[in-house]
Amino acid sequence: MKADAAATIGDSEFDRDTRVTLREPGVYDAELSAGWTIINAVNGGYLLALIGRALADALPHDDPFTISAHYLTASQPGPAVIRTDVVRGGRTLSTGQASLFQYDEEGREVERIRVLASYGDLDTLPDDVRTTAKPPAIPPIDQCFGAGDAPDNAPPVPGSSAITERLALKLDPSTLGWALGAPSGKGEMRAWFSLADGRDADPLSLLLVVDALPPTAFELGLMGWVPTVELTTHIRHRPAPGPLRVSITTRNLAGGFLEEDAEVWDSEDRLVAQSRQLARVKLA
Amino acid sequence: MKADAAATIGDSEFDRDTRVTLREPGVYDAELSAGWTIINAVNGGYLLALIGRALADALPHDDPFTISAHYLTASQPGPAVIRTDVVRGGRTLSTGQASLFQYDEEGREVERIRVLASYGDLDTLPDDVRTTAKPPAIPPIDQCFGAGDAPDNAPPVPGSSAITERLALKLDPSTLGWALGAPSGKGEMRAWFSLADGRDADPLSLLLVVDALPPTAFELGLMGWVPTVELTTHIRHRPAPGPLRVSITTRNLAGGFLEEDAEVWDSEDRLVAQSRQLARVKLA
Repeated sequence: MKADAAATIGDSEFDRDTRVTLREPGVYDAELSAGWTIINAVNGGYLLALIGRALADALPHDDPFTISAHYLTASQPGPAVIRTDVVRGGRTLSTGQASLFQYDEEGREVERIRVLASYGDLDTLPDDVRTTAKPPAIPPIDQCFGAGDAPDNAPPVPGSSAITERLALKLDPSTLGWALGAPSGKGEMRAWFSLADGRDADPLSLLLVVDALPPTAFELGLMGWVPTVELTTHIRHRPAPGPLRVSITTRNLAGGFLEEDAEVWDSEDRLVAQSRQLARVKLA
Repeated sequence: MKADAAATIGDSEFDRDTRVTLREPGVYDAELSAGWTIINAVNGGYLLALIGRALADALPHDDPFTISAHYLTASQPGPAVIRTDVVRGGRTLSTGQASLFQYDEEGREVERIRVLASYGDLDTLPDDVRTTAKPPAIPPIDQCFGAGDAPDNAPPVPGSSAITERLALKLDPSTLGWALGAPSGKGEMRAWFSLADGRDADPLSLLLVVDALPPTAFELGLMGWVPTVELTTHIRHRPAPGPLRVSITTRNLAGGFLEEDAEVWDSEDRLVAQSRQLARVKLA
């Protein structure tokens, strides 16, 4: 899929594929798109964005400030239903809960993900910034590499890689060793991120961004699926238009689990999102 | 309160004050102790440990692997009820939800905290450790300072400081500037942690530990209450006996919110817990 400058927030692949339809108060029908699958599952960030959209409709506030998702069973492309519950509607923050279900052979609902989130209005926050965090050092985009740049001898990603067509992901060469069969051994992954159709980022798409890079486990020499157990994302500022810089770090791989910390920076050098997930690794 | 070498896991202040009593399947009565209050609220880590104990009883697994808490209203010492729900009972991981309620003047339940957690069995995890994380550099305990060492000119903590009597907290002098009226400006806090009665750490007490240090905001020159919006904790290993080392870091203070990342290391240099919270700051 080529970049399409016409795609905008509200009119893009991402918006169409995260559409939710109100069935009854608090209950939303959705269709999980096959376009956001990777390896053998629907991408967890895409699913979180879809649930986040339902919560934005159900809650008095529009923007996820902190959203925690526990992944129960692997989602598959196809119909789904999101059931939301308003836990508390506050003045500056409101808290909600949501569950995404799919259907088994008998049409019974099977829960895939349960989410707890607090929403607010990013545009009402003071501009005061006293951060010591620095944007990740990533070479210019034209010196980074995307899925289309993969060498012929790159190990194939097992299963689906459909999501790579939806993302304009350009990886920092220094975190690309895994693609050349020579992982660095460091739990780091850095990339420039844009949606392939040119749609700019907003708070909901940031929920996709934090889980969109190849797993740090690849650079640790562990290819294969690293299923997310839990993912919590803080949205700290509305992202400015333009490409995002994303860095993911794993410091503690132990006991068959690892954490993945993601930072997302916008084109104005603001830290717009922080996330941490606990994932399982299949140690060979 | 003096250290009491007789206190053990199961027989200690912490165990007595986090006791839950089964009222009916999935519903537990509890008494929030005034002994764990700080400033104008019951400590959020103590509350999380109490909820974590209820979930450990309700779920097929005993150990919290990842537990996310959204704090809705400030808890007060006194009676509370915890309502749990088993979301999924898996073989290696089970997921549960819990809400802690207290009572208003009319005896109606008021929700204080809602929690989503995945539990497992830490003792079944492989020993494989491939971590790049390093323990925090903290001077020896006898070169660190506790509440009893506060100089006469130290600014008094507003409100209650009862919890300081329950904790044998020894702060790294390099993160103590705030207590001398000279905050470092760095969002760092490091300390040795033990329970005052000598009870060793276990996975449940780690839920207290991650929220037990003075807020990093103090070292950023912001005294006063920093209410937690959301706190997610990963328990990565059963802690060895002996004092713990805790480091808390804030990198992004912006828009009236900050994140606090905590790491807890045991006496065998293992990273036993990682947590991140989103908290609100009252910018003067």
